[in-house]
Amino acid sequence: MRWADGFIAVDWGTTNRRAYMVDAQGSCSSEFEDEKGILSVPSGGFEAAVSEIRERMGDKPMLLAGMVGSNRGWIEVPYAFCPAGLGDLARQLKWSPDGTAALVPGVAYLDERADVMRGEEVQILGAAAAGEIPADCLVCHPGTHNKWIEVRDGRIRSFRTVMTGELFNLLRDRSILSDLLQADVEPSEAFRDGVRRGVAGAALTAELFETRARVLLGRLKPEDGGPFVSGLLIGHDLRVGLEQRSGLPVVVMGRPELTELYAAALEEASVEAVEMDGERAFLAGARKIVELIE
Amino acid sequence: MRWADGFIAVDWGTTNRRAYMVDAQGSCSSEFEDEKGILSVPSGGFEAAVSEIRERMGDKPMLLAGMVGSNRGWIEVPYAFCPAGLGDLARQLKWSPDGTAALVPGVAYLDERADVMRGEEVQILGAAAAGEIPADCLVCHPGTHNKWIEVRDGRIRSFRTVMTGELFNLLRDRSILSDLLQADVEPSEAFRDGVRRGVAGAALTAELFETRARVLLGRLKPEDGGPFVSGLLIGHDLRVGLEQRSGLPVVVMGRPELTELYAAALEEASVEAVEMDGERAFLAGARKIVELIE
Repeated sequence: MRWADGFIAVDWGTTNRRAYMVDAQGSCSSEFEDEKGILSVPSGGFEAAVSEIRERMGDKPMLLAGMVGSNRGWIEVPYAFCPAGLGDLARQLKWSPDGTAALVPGVAYLDERADVMRGEEVQILGAAAAGEIPADCLVCHPGTHNKWIEVRDGRIRSFRTVMTGELFNLLRDRSILSDLLQADVEPSEAFRDGVRRGVAGAALTAELFETRARVLLGRLKPEDGGPFVSGLLIGHDLRVGLEQRSGLPVVVMGRPELTELYAAALEEASVEAVEMDGERAFLAGARKIVELIE
Repeated sequence: MRWADGFIAVDWGTTNRRAYMVDAQGSCSSEFEDEKGILSVPSGGFEAAVSEIRERMGDKPMLLAGMVGSNRGWIEVPYAFCPAGLGDLARQLKWSPDGTAALVPGVAYLDERADVMRGEEVQILGAAAAGEIPADCLVCHPGTHNKWIEVRDGRIRSFRTVMTGELFNLLRDRSILSDLLQADVEPSEAFRDGVRRGVAGAALTAELFETRARVLLGRLKPEDGGPFVSGLLIGHDLRVGLEQRSGLPVVVMGRPELTELYAAALEEASVEAVEMDGERAFLAGARKIVELIE
């Protein structure tokens, strides 16, 4: 199997995976997404899960990124440490026993703080290498674990993770606020009010309960509860992330439904940001890494 | 049924209930606790759930406090508004159709902020009326929803709820931090470190993820992860609560296993606090309300 004849790139996360067939010309000729994240793969089941992708997309070499390279995934790939560029990722790939699949390392940051990522690095470094984002910028990458990534000279210099998405999901699925959080969130005035309070440093753990009290006492419409809580969490997130800005331009990268909310929140905080589709960035990163293999 | 011949007092919360038989002399002659919180009672099932308590404890009048008086409980009792004293609770009791059970109102606070409680008011006002806490003090009441209550002249003047316990439980039961949070928390050095960071205003949603990263990168022992996260959440809680202190003595009231952790955290924040058992306070409050009925 030759990479130059086309390959399959997979962004394989905790709860879902997305696979793309990249043809010999570098175009994405087919793709699929399903919920077979690493937590749904039984112990010893990764060979079968990988074969299943090849059955669907073709018998091609595979580049696997994300939690599939974690200690809960298929083959553990040690982190590349900051500052990390695409060349570091390519040099530190781990290969499957039969040599037909390469797993991309995650990136770790370690000084007084400690942080880790797996999957976002391909998008960020890919977009930078392809010239789609500035070589020096601050990338906001919303998701279950939102990341704020300082990019310098096209490499990841530092980053910080904020547990915003996971907290929102926990609150929506299981908390006393659950009733209020079922509807999709739009960047409404209630959302923007939450953002303002979060950015201003309101006490998150108190404001969450107060949202319920305001609804019970008729001070907030139930339908505004969800957008307010979402805005509050994202506002806190911005407060953390923008500390690392130091004048850099801001890019919001990821799934469009999330980048839209974060872009609206950044606007509320008077920060101009450009949005970038995470899928496009992932494909750019995968192609660049494969070029470096050959 | 005469209250003077003894009565049953029930602290009936969301996930559990505790019932006490108070005899004619005012002593607690028997008690039980089970997990039949209001969420486990089917629609229309409260008469049966109340009868079951009488079958176990005797055919006596009942005083019911807590979420049983909420819109998800048996009979909704409108809140008493701050400032609220025991007399307000007694005047605003709601009676069961047969007149043998009285439900205690919760307390609401409303100005620029909004807040609600159901259950804690009986403990706090009872302890104040019995002279077990100062007539002017700040009560910290840890639980699923921790409350900080400003007591003035033996009445509840204001309070603020922090969602600490519920957040900790969500993180322990369902989050990426779950593995780290299974062991019981002791007030260890890791706990105190978390408290210090929380009180100092560390970014909660970022520090939570960083705890995992520190463990993955060998900077924190896995067994210290849980106490650190608990300390971090409680530290944030103290930061909110102590804003309302303005020189008042601090009392920590509730379940001993929780008051111990909060007292250790307050010590770390250089705040002296006395601990008070919540059960004893509840019985004091129930007796006082019953005296006011007659």
